[in-house]
Amino acid sequence: MNFKISKRLFLNGLQVVSRAVSSISPLPSLSGIKIDITKDKMILTGSNSDISIQKELKNDDDLKLVVDEEGSMLIDSRYLVDIVKKIDSDTINIERIDGQLYKIYGNDAEYKINGMSTHDYPMIDFNEPSNKFYIDAYTLLKVINQTTFATSDKENKPVLCGVNFKCDGDTVECIATDSYRLARKYFKIDESLKFNVTIPRKSLNEIAHSIEKDEKVKVAIGNNKCQFYVDNTLIQSRLIDGAYPETSRLIPTEFKHELVVDSREILNAIDRASLMRNDGVYFVKLVGNEDSVTISSKADDIGSYSGSINIESWTGQPLSITFSGRYILEAIRTLEASTIKISFSGDMRPFVITSLDDNSVLQLVLPVRTYN
Amino acid sequence: MNFKISKRLFLNGLQVVSRAVSSISPLPSLSGIKIDITKDKMILTGSNSDISIQKELKNDDDLKLVVDEEGSMLIDSRYLVDIVKKIDSDTINIERIDGQLYKIYGNDAEYKINGMSTHDYPMIDFNEPSNKFYIDAYTLLKVINQTTFATSDKENKPVLCGVNFKCDGDTVECIATDSYRLARKYFKIDESLKFNVTIPRKSLNEIAHSIEKDEKVKVAIGNNKCQFYVDNTLIQSRLIDGAYPETSRLIPTEFKHELVVDSREILNAIDRASLMRNDGVYFVKLVGNEDSVTISSKADDIGSYSGSINIESWTGQPLSITFSGRYILEAIRTLEASTIKISFSGDMRPFVITSLDDNSVLQLVLPVRTYN
Repeated sequence: MNFKISKRLFLNGLQVVSRAVSSISPLPSLSGIKIDITKDKMILTGSNSDISIQKELKNDDDLKLVVDEEGSMLIDSRYLVDIVKKIDSDTINIERIDGQLYKIYGNDAEYKINGMSTHDYPMIDFNEPSNKFYIDAYTLLKVINQTTFATSDKENKPVLCGVNFKCDGDTVECIATDSYRLARKYFKIDESLKFNVTIPRKSLNEIAHSIEKDEKVKVAIGNNKCQFYVDNTLIQSRLIDGAYPETSRLIPTEFKHELVVDSREILNAIDRASLMRNDGVYFVKLVGNEDSVTISSKADDIGSYSGSINIESWTGQPLSITFSGRYILEAIRTLEASTIKISFSGDMRPFVITSLDDNSVLQLVLPVRTYN
Repeated sequence: MNFKISKRLFLNGLQVVSRAVSSISPLPSLSGIKIDITKDKMILTGSNSDISIQKELKNDDDLKLVVDEEGSMLIDSRYLVDIVKKIDSDTINIERIDGQLYKIYGNDAEYKINGMSTHDYPMIDFNEPSNKFYIDAYTLLKVINQTTFATSDKENKPVLCGVNFKCDGDTVECIATDSYRLARKYFKIDESLKFNVTIPRKSLNEIAHSIEKDEKVKVAIGNNKCQFYVDNTLIQSRLIDGAYPETSRLIPTEFKHELVVDSREILNAIDRASLMRNDGVYFVKLVGNEDSVTISSKADDIGSYSGSINIESWTGQPLSITFSGRYILEAIRTLEASTIKISFSGDMRPFVITSLDDNSVLQLVLPVRTYN
């Protein structure tokens, strides 16, 4: 193996695939990045077995790929990325010296580094499933940002650690819940498909990080994996096994009280209330009627907060309700709406937060019971 | 106690004195900021017993101080700073409700917060010692930055955890050493004074953080404390007890080899070498003669680095010497010089790094012994 390549594009490719690599993998070979070189292209692969990223760099003028000897190599991701970053040269040369020992050099700086055997690297099946659709990258980003925060981080119910993507026709319904709150987002596709899969939160967040510009993203859904093709990079994730709970009947459709309010106004009030915490958690009490809405909180032994907010409207009877401040903050922030509507069914019933401008997304939160 | 005040200036004052406050103080009252209000001024005090900061806000148009009732209060620093930050109002009102319970409010947001008794706050002697001099703030900043990094972080030799300031005439000599390296900096004063004190590293770093513009800083040195007056703020630190070791004979004055090199060139080479670490530590080998200087490093089982650097000149016989890469990086960086000179006396003797432009500062590093 002996080649040279543009530092900039090589480093970019390494950084992209290194995001799938975990340094604490039980399989030592997965701490490496696999590089396959042929005359006309380089394929970079990184994986932590849950998520795998593959990037193909095709030879063109920018890539400046010159291959003296084809081959494959596997080198620890941390060292490889840092070495290529630190070599101050437009092109990087890599040459196998002997066994798994490689020389990486450019502009009078030379590293020798021990690689690993490519035979130890697991076979990863990158075949493309047939169930596929296209989605705008920025729409996908919104789908991810408006749902993943509501997934559970408790590993005892694995299926709740992912977002459920369900489709039977041309509308995809995405649901995330940790049992105390729920996020629901719809989006349309051009195809007519049928699938019901749950994608791990971590994989979706990784995909969100990979999105840098608005372009069409191809999504392929298989029985045990899904693939996202973002900017010439293939990001493949396993799916979470198990049936996702039926959530539609949890979402109330009739309401007794409705608050319409500027989202910054209520976010700022809840932020002020957030100083009053008990063991790091803060509960916020909302007392509302047609004339005024007050937000308050208190922390044992420390003090209390109280302040009224300017509202657009309150419809229905007066109400007093208490909820997790963090849940509401996260739900309202992800809506990215200027004006929001909060619809209540009673002081102990789940309530719904929606954007006045966008009916594709809904946030649901359960109140908490208080004894004063 | 009942007053109102400009939020901006009050918050700024609180943030300045809160830097001395530690939330893990053994004395609960020291987790608070003490506020003394009279008709014409506010005095803010924060302390962790090692370092104390006092800021006086004098009443003028900007401060908008209106005092209905004079008094003193003591409130937990974390809450007080955050509360004032989050109240969205030009002026902040504070009023004692009852006992130690205070109301802090502005623009329809109202906090009630439990304070502490000011009687529990320690008496801090802020009297000004008579031994005093003036120094430009940016010169003081340089003195601090070029010395504190070389102090020891081992608590078993407390005196090495500070910087020794020694004066007998109009030149102050500042020395820091952790036994493996040493930093020495001189500066001139207009006065003729005699003192020999050691100031804790943490206090000096706190003073450096307080410097925002170049102005005259008054420094007053006492028997057991020192004071720095920066921008209407008094920062007072305890001194470290014990005699500082005599270091002058450790610094060689005759050299056998001298390397003159662009500081970026050698910094970049050592940075490249830094990837090859053993247990987080990296040793760098420098091999030099009149024709070339090579920097190399290696890490067991991982690999090695080697690269030559462009030099201005090498004087003397060839030399091979090994040293801590981190020590050299830190020493060269703090010189802030474009071209540096490294003067060696032999492969096992301490060597000296100086700036070609500034003879007020010297960095000394001990080499390490290697067995290959």
